[in-house]
Amino acid sequence: MDKDVTATDAVSYAENGGTLAFGPDKPLRLDSGGRLDHVEIAYRTYGSLNAERSNAILICHALTGDQHVASQHPITGKPGWWTQMVGPGKPLDPTRHFIICSNVIGGCMGTTGPSSIDPATGKPWGLSFPVITIADMVRAQVMLVDALGIDTLFAVVGGSMGGMQALQWAADYPERIYSVVCLAAAARHSAQNIAFHELGRQAIMADPDWRGGDYAAHGVRPEKGLGVARMAAHITYLSEQALQRKFGRELQRDGLSWGFDADFQVESYLRHQGAVFVDRFDANSYLYITRATDYFDMAASYDGLLADAFVKAREVRFCVLSFTSDWLYPTPESRSIVRALNAAGARASFLEIESDKGHDAFLLDEPVMRDAVAGFMASAGQARGLGNGGLK
Amino acid sequence: MDKDVTATDAVSYAENGGTLAFGPDKPLRLDSGGRLDHVEIAYRTYGSLNAERSNAILICHALTGDQHVASQHPITGKPGWWTQMVGPGKPLDPTRHFIICSNVIGGCMGTTGPSSIDPATGKPWGLSFPVITIADMVRAQVMLVDALGIDTLFAVVGGSMGGMQALQWAADYPERIYSVVCLAAAARHSAQNIAFHELGRQAIMADPDWRGGDYAAHGVRPEKGLGVARMAAHITYLSEQALQRKFGRELQRDGLSWGFDADFQVESYLRHQGAVFVDRFDANSYLYITRATDYFDMAASYDGLLADAFVKAREVRFCVLSFTSDWLYPTPESRSIVRALNAAGARASFLEIESDKGHDAFLLDEPVMRDAVAGFMASAGQARGLGNGGLK
Repeated sequence: MDKDVTATDAVSYAENGGTLAFGPDKPLRLDSGGRLDHVEIAYRTYGSLNAERSNAILICHALTGDQHVASQHPITGKPGWWTQMVGPGKPLDPTRHFIICSNVIGGCMGTTGPSSIDPATGKPWGLSFPVITIADMVRAQVMLVDALGIDTLFAVVGGSMGGMQALQWAADYPERIYSVVCLAAAARHSAQNIAFHELGRQAIMADPDWRGGDYAAHGVRPEKGLGVARMAAHITYLSEQALQRKFGRELQRDGLSWGFDADFQVESYLRHQGAVFVDRFDANSYLYITRATDYFDMAASYDGLLADAFVKAREVRFCVLSFTSDWLYPTPESRSIVRALNAAGARASFLEIESDKGHDAFLLDEPVMRDAVAGFMASAGQARGLGNGGLK
Repeated sequence: MDKDVTATDAVSYAENGGTLAFGPDKPLRLDSGGRLDHVEIAYRTYGSLNAERSNAILICHALTGDQHVASQHPITGKPGWWTQMVGPGKPLDPTRHFIICSNVIGGCMGTTGPSSIDPATGKPWGLSFPVITIADMVRAQVMLVDALGIDTLFAVVGGSMGGMQALQWAADYPERIYSVVCLAAAARHSAQNIAFHELGRQAIMADPDWRGGDYAAHGVRPEKGLGVARMAAHITYLSEQALQRKFGRELQRDGLSWGFDADFQVESYLRHQGAVFVDRFDANSYLYITRATDYFDMAASYDGLLADAFVKAREVRFCVLSFTSDWLYPTPESRSIVRALNAAGARASFLEIESDKGHDAFLLDEPVMRDAVAGFMASAGQARGLGNGGLK
C-alpha cells in the first residue's frame, strides 16, 4: 500500500490506496455459479475513518471508470473523474467523510479481471475469465469494506453503472448501509441499452487483433475495434442537443475535404475519444463489464417485482436523481426505481434535473445535482450523528 | 432493358426497368467540381406514362434502399421495400401513375458508384470515385427523367435520404416538379446524425479487409466492419419503445449463456441485420452515401436561410410528414422545413404522425401516413387534372 497526503485548497486530508489480495480462504463467489479463489481489489481512499467508524462512503464507478475518483489518473495524468463532487467543501468531503473507491471486479485498473493472470495457467485469463455481474462487483466491494474494518457504510454513491451497484447494495446488504445515492441509472438494462453494448462488443470481436480474446499472448491489442466501441458509447453519453451545441456542423478546416478525413468537428472528437480510450482500457474488460450491465435486471430475482428487492432496505435513505436529456437511462427508469422504493416503504427522495448535457451530466459540473446530493448527505449526516457539514 | 407485365390483385400494369448509360456527351457534373463522363443509372418503372406526360412520380430511395420499390429484390428475393405505399389502390398507384425509382449515384445496385469499373483504369473506382452529394444524386435523376421524355414530374416522393432528394429537387428544379412528399427527413444532417454515420464509416475502415477501399482487387470484402456499421444504423432506425416492445429483455434460450453468445433476442436480431446486409450492399457505397447525407445542408448554399432554397418553389405543393418517435430525424427538423416553406410562400401541409416505431415508421404499415399521402396525392392529382383516384 502506498501512502501519501495531498493538500488541496490548503485543506489536508489523508489519501491512501493500494491493492488488497484475497486467497482461497476468502473466495469470491459468483452469480454464474463459479468462484474466484484469487482476487485482488485496487482502491483509493480519501479522508479518515472516524472513531465510530460511521463516516465511510463507498463510491461506485461507472462502466469505464476506476478508483481514481479524486486523484490523478496514473495513465492519462488527468484529475480524478468526479472532482466536482468529491473534495473539501464538496458533497462528498474527505475532510469529513472516509471515501472509498475501488476498481470493479472484471476491470483493468488493478482489480482482478480478464487481463489478470490466471494463477492456474500463469497466463492472462482472457475469455476464460468467468462472466461477472453487478452483484459480483458488490460482493467484491463487501470483501474490501470488511478488510477495511467497516461494518456499516454511511453511503453508497454511484452514477450510471455505479448507481446499479448502489441499488444492488441496498438489495443484498441493506443492514450494512445507511444511505444510497443513485444517479442517472436504472434497475435493469433496456433493449436499447443492450443493443448499444452488443454493437460495441461486436466491434471489438470483429477486430482480427482481438484473437478470440487471446490478444495478450500475441502481443497485440484490438485497438480499432475498441475505439469504434468507444465511439458508439460516447454518442449515447451525450444528448442530441449537447452534440448540436458543442459541434453542430462546424468544420475542422475551411471547406469540405471531399473525402473521408474528419471534416466535421464531431467526427474528429469521436475519433479522438476512441483513440485515447484504448490507452487506458482493456478490450476484454469492456466485454465483461458491458455484459455485467446487460445482465443487470434487479427485479428478475424477485419474480419481476422490483419493490421486493428493497423490502429489507426500508431503513435505508435513498436519493435518486435523473437528468432530462439522458436518453441512455432516461427519467422513467429512475421513476420506476422510486415507485418500487415507495412500494417497499423505503425513504426515497427523487429529483429530475433539467439539463441538456445527456447522460454525461452526472460527471459534469451540474450545480443542481451538487446541491441536491449535498443536501441529502447533510440531512443523512445529521441523522447519522456526523453533523450536517456546515449546511445552513 | 427487360420488360415484363406483372399482375397484382388482378390489376395489371406495365413494369419496366433497366439501365441507361450516358457518355461524355452528357457528363454528370458534381458538386465537388469534378464530373463523371460515364454514368449508368439503373431504374424501375411501374405503370404507364399518360398521353399528357403528366402522371410521372419519382420515388427517391433512402440510404440503403434501391430501385426495387415495388418489385422483388434480385438478391434477397424480398418484395419491394415500399409495397405499403406503391401498388394498385395505394397512394402511389401504378394503374394511374407512372412511377419511377432509380438507384442513386454512388449506389451499388446498378447505378454508377465506387464498385463500378472506372473506364480510365478498367478497375473498380474504389476510393478514387468522387465524393458525391444529394444534389449530385438529383442531377443524375434529372438525366434519367430527361431520357424518359418527361418534362414535369407530378410528384417527387421520398423518406429519410429520399426526402432530402425530394427537397433538393424543389430547390434546384422547381419548374420541373408539381409536388413533393417528404417523409421522416431533414434539411440538414445534425451533429448526432453525422456522429452515427462516422461511427459506421470507422467500423468499415477499421476492417483490415477494407484494404483502403481496394478490397475488390484482393477478392475480399470488409463484411465484419460493414456488419457493425449496419448494426449501429439499425439501432437508430428503431425507437427505444419499439425495441422494448419487440424484444425487451427476452432471451434466445432458457437462461443466460454466461458468455458472449447472443443471449438476448435483441442481440441476435442486430447480428442478423448486420449479417444479411453485407450480402446486398457494398461497403464503399456505404461510405459514399453516408458522406453525401452528412454533407447535406440545404441552407448552407443560401447563406444559412433555408427559406431562400424554396423561393422559386412557391408553386410546388409540399406534404411534409414526421413521426413522433423518430429520433434520427425528429419532428423539429420537419418543422424547420415547414417554417422555411411558409416563409418562402410555398404551399405546405404538415403532419406529425403518432407512432412508436421510430424512424423506420415510414417504411412500415402506418395507416395515418398512407391516408395522409393518399389525400395529398388525390388533391394534387385533381388540381393536375389526373382525377382524384376515386377518393371521396
